[in-house]
Amino acid sequence: MGTSSAALDAVLVRKRLTRLREAAGHAGASATVVTPGSDLRYLLGVAGSSFERLTCLVVPTDGGAPVFVSPALEYAGLAGLGLEALGIEVRTWVDGDDPYALALAGTALDRVAVSDLTPALHAFRLREAGAAHQVLAGPILRELRMRKDRAELEQLRLAGAAIDRVHARVAEWLRPGRTEAEVGADIAAAIVEEGHATADFVIVASGPNAASPHHSLSDRVIERGELVVVDIGGPLPSGYNSDSTRTYAAGLAPARDVATAYATLQAAQEAAVEAVRPGVTCEAVDEAARAVLRDAGLDGFFIHRTGHGIGLDVHEEPYVVARNDLPLEPGMTFSVEPGVYVPGEWGARIEDIVAVTDSAVERLNNRPRDLIVV
Amino acid sequence: MGTSSAALDAVLVRKRLTRLREAAGHAGASATVVTPGSDLRYLLGVAGSSFERLTCLVVPTDGGAPVFVSPALEYAGLAGLGLEALGIEVRTWVDGDDPYALALAGTALDRVAVSDLTPALHAFRLREAGAAHQVLAGPILRELRMRKDRAELEQLRLAGAAIDRVHARVAEWLRPGRTEAEVGADIAAAIVEEGHATADFVIVASGPNAASPHHSLSDRVIERGELVVVDIGGPLPSGYNSDSTRTYAAGLAPARDVATAYATLQAAQEAAVEAVRPGVTCEAVDEAARAVLRDAGLDGFFIHRTGHGIGLDVHEEPYVVARNDLPLEPGMTFSVEPGVYVPGEWGARIEDIVAVTDSAVERLNNRPRDLIVV
Repeated sequence: MGTSSAALDAVLVRKRLTRLREAAGHAGASATVVTPGSDLRYLLGVAGSSFERLTCLVVPTDGGAPVFVSPALEYAGLAGLGLEALGIEVRTWVDGDDPYALALAGTALDRVAVSDLTPALHAFRLREAGAAHQVLAGPILRELRMRKDRAELEQLRLAGAAIDRVHARVAEWLRPGRTEAEVGADIAAAIVEEGHATADFVIVASGPNAASPHHSLSDRVIERGELVVVDIGGPLPSGYNSDSTRTYAAGLAPARDVATAYATLQAAQEAAVEAVRPGVTCEAVDEAARAVLRDAGLDGFFIHRTGHGIGLDVHEEPYVVARNDLPLEPGMTFSVEPGVYVPGEWGARIEDIVAVTDSAVERLNNRPRDLIVV
Repeated sequence: MGTSSAALDAVLVRKRLTRLREAAGHAGASATVVTPGSDLRYLLGVAGSSFERLTCLVVPTDGGAPVFVSPALEYAGLAGLGLEALGIEVRTWVDGDDPYALALAGTALDRVAVSDLTPALHAFRLREAGAAHQVLAGPILRELRMRKDRAELEQLRLAGAAIDRVHARVAEWLRPGRTEAEVGADIAAAIVEEGHATADFVIVASGPNAASPHHSLSDRVIERGELVVVDIGGPLPSGYNSDSTRTYAAGLAPARDVATAYATLQAAQEAAVEAVRPGVTCEAVDEAARAVLRDAGLDGFFIHRTGHGIGLDVHEEPYVVARNDLPLEPGMTFSVEPGVYVPGEWGARIEDIVAVTDSAVERLNNRPRDLIVV
């Protein structure tokens, strides 16, 4: 029941572990504990299993050998990773053993960084086993994961192109008289057909449902003239994710006031993307979108942040949100997705993934951003 | 991107919240914080979203109103639950707010129980917001979730029957010359066809892969005469899970020594199921399987516990494992799944879900347990 992937190359693993130690040192952590999920996949190329049995990588900041702890019955599937050859000490355990003491033995426990997704189940037991002073590893790992390298950018480009191909086909399935769920099932199949490992999320939000940004799917029948928000994505086999939203009009262009508001939304999205370049803060990109909507009296209908980072997680650092004064740097990748939501009536959103380049911005989604009548 | 389900009826929600308070009181917790996942689904009928934005239910032990905290953009999809009518105070927040302070305001924080699946991201921020003394809520919630009520048992019976129907069809797909992944894809489709919401896990482990208990799927071609472990399951729309394993022989009965070992395994599984009744401990059930294998010199090849509880989670309390002296009670449901794993050669496992009745045991999986030549 685990998830696995091809091993990363040895040079890359060593480089990332070295950078993790450096970042942990700057953060004053004596060790970093990484449990299954995207952080583990980033470091070792394997996400691991997230069940109740402890699997983790413990990286001492002082340069001692990293320790990989795994239930013996899971490790059979991981032996091919060649962790020992990378200087990682493997410690397996069987049901009835104490994996927490096993994980921490020999490691300095003054201040232990724990990966953000670690369940309390494991974090609290690590605490009882001696790691009493715990801090989040997120601020450490974001220093590694937030700026994508060339291979990561290429994966995100491929993911963007794959989801663009799905949006290009939405007109095949989206039409008045079908339910959101029916359209969503077709889209989910296409997400996989176009190269994703899974269809991680499929939002088809029609009419008043479109006013709920995280509405998923329902048995609601799409009616002629309604706006339909289609927000879709998933991971490629490499683990890197797509995420793109377009808003469609079912069978008929909308009323003039809705069309006007949509044009403003499109201008807001464009302004935010154009604001992206190295040195600009996340909050400034958020404000660029918000200002356009504010000038039109629509900012009250834009009820979420402008975007989120994307990579091995669909949502990760950096967050494009008010009060985040983090300056953008080349290699950062995130969504730019303002929306307008009129409760009980209609909603619209436009979302592209962008990458910060050395001097400006690269869009990883390139489908037309106009309201698309299907 | 959330997961949702029909609201529970008001009587049931109130009853479960009352029982939660009682169990929290016995455990000395001043409040219980439940984040998205099966614990939340058990209490409110909705699992919630597990992204980086905090959603949680805070239940004060002293009887003050429970508080449900939700990002405003998620709550639009939850408004239909009617939480306010149940006496639950809803507090929504928007990007930029501090949801942790919002969650804890007005609640006694002497000793806060936190649900086991809560990510460190949220647990540590709740700590910084004032919930400094945290304990796991698992021991509290297991007092509620471990003994299934009549409706839950009925869902688990339906789940067992659904996965039995899939096993009944395995011979349609499993044959020498096909890959594990090809067979797995057919099985996954059938799991959904037979009424599951998703195919949560599909293990098709052939030949030497069968010696790795948590091997999933690979492109390995199944060869004639090999044993193939098929361990499959998933949730019904209600959230209650199936999980059943049978071992198949591809095209040909195995060699005599393997057949003999399999017969011993079958006797071990039978002995463990027959040991189940109220008052018997979990470790005694584990030992019942292990003793049969030990008598045949095979216990060294049985490298995991005998079983795990099942309900809204595939793995939950009670765990049927050495040193767990918890006595069984009517309504407990768990797997009985001994295995024999000969590294590099072959493996076999037989798994049924069982329910403890007032006087003995009910099997929820009822396919033949012999080695099935397909």
